[in-house]
Amino acid sequence: MSKQFILHQDALSANCYKIKLTAALLDIPLEKRNYSILEGDTQTPEFQANVSFWRRIPVLQVGESSFLPESNASCFYLAEYSQSLSKSQSSASLLPRYNLIPEDPFRKATMLRWMFFEQNNHEICVGTLRFWLHILGEEKLSADRVAQIPGKKLAVRECFDHMQDHLANRTTSGWFVGESITLADICLFAYTHLVDNAGFDLNEWPAIKAWCERLKSVDGFIPFDLND
Amino acid sequence: MSKQFILHQDALSANCYKIKLTAALLDIPLEKRNYSILEGDTQTPEFQANVSFWRRIPVLQVGESSFLPESNASCFYLAEYSQSLSKSQSSASLLPRYNLIPEDPFRKATMLRWMFFEQNNHEICVGTLRFWLHILGEEKLSADRVAQIPGKKLAVRECFDHMQDHLANRTTSGWFVGESITLADICLFAYTHLVDNAGFDLNEWPAIKAWCERLKSVDGFIPFDLND
Repeated sequence: MSKQFILHQDALSANCYKIKLTAALLDIPLEKRNYSILEGDTQTPEFQANVSFWRRIPVLQVGESSFLPESNASCFYLAEYSQSLSKSQSSASLLPRYNLIPEDPFRKATMLRWMFFEQNNHEICVGTLRFWLHILGEEKLSADRVAQIPGKKLAVRECFDHMQDHLANRTTSGWFVGESITLADICLFAYTHLVDNAGFDLNEWPAIKAWCERLKSVDGFIPFDLND
Repeated sequence: MSKQFILHQDALSANCYKIKLTAALLDIPLEKRNYSILEGDTQTPEFQANVSFWRRIPVLQVGESSFLPESNASCFYLAEYSQSLSKSQSSASLLPRYNLIPEDPFRKATMLRWMFFEQNNHEICVGTLRFWLHILGEEKLSADRVAQIPGKKLAVRECFDHMQDHLANRTTSGWFVGESITLADICLFAYTHLVDNAGFDLNEWPAIKAWCERLKSVDGFIPFDLND
């Protein structure tokens, strides 16, 4: 039996977009509940009581009463769900388009490696700079945040140089892990393709740019959309 | 057939300790290669060519030529490896002591949720403050880093208050997810139990303190050891 999924989200957030992109590639219907981070909608007692006392989005709601914070964990859950459905189907026509989690254990762990890199290194510089410079605006930042901008810009460059080297060395595959698209690609794509919002030009890293174009052309792709 | 694992590590790092603790609980032998972060051992051309061009430890080496950066991904790989071994064994005496990854898909995703929380929120404040204040020493920090200390201290408090609330609400289980110890506990324990190195007193959070004591008493536990 298919489950009901509700995404508690703000369309501004590329962390939320990861989950929508995963669901779209896997043909999983997703209801949405919208909150404004800027208006403080996730800081209310209602949000804490009914959605998550971590007071952040995205949160993936599964059925009536199960709530899953953290974008990358939510993508993992949807991809495993899709694979479990496909194993229980007898008709090939119902197979999902993609196995976004590799079966091979070392490849699966390597996918997680890039997803942890994304959360521990990449999102905290690219995502944070985008939020500060593009969404809030530099003139609204505290002195403490302004002082962190040069360090975060260096960290963006370190992450992107590393991704560029990795992709340029993947001579037999255009994807981060194995031979086909995985959650590593989806989770890294979300903030990477918006790096201009953090003050960078993707043309500096041609292998990353080509990988972004490759990802945008896969069947089922949906673009980042501030109104979705 | 059992695999050979080599941990490229610095005993100063609690990220490296997570992997050693996982291997100890699962009775997986782990060779060690030691590097000094402070001496720049991971920044050399040799390290980049032979271990990881991300220039960070830990890196888990599997066999001759497979290298896995990222502590939490390495723990995941070892735990899946242990579970796959146990499925191929016919003798109950060879079963691992713990299934550190839940079988239930929602619980597994919830375990990953806490592991991503650890890398995206917890380690970047607790681990970073420990490194700055305890290992480097505040007098050696740049002005940029000193300016970030108050924000990072607030972030520690937010993480620990959240963990305290979560554990205090777990009335039927003493663990982060499900009914028994998982990788979520191991990965969060590493820096949590060293929070005094970041300038905090664990007595402020009694449910976290009790959980730390619970973890220290499990069969196979090894303590954090600067000489190991």
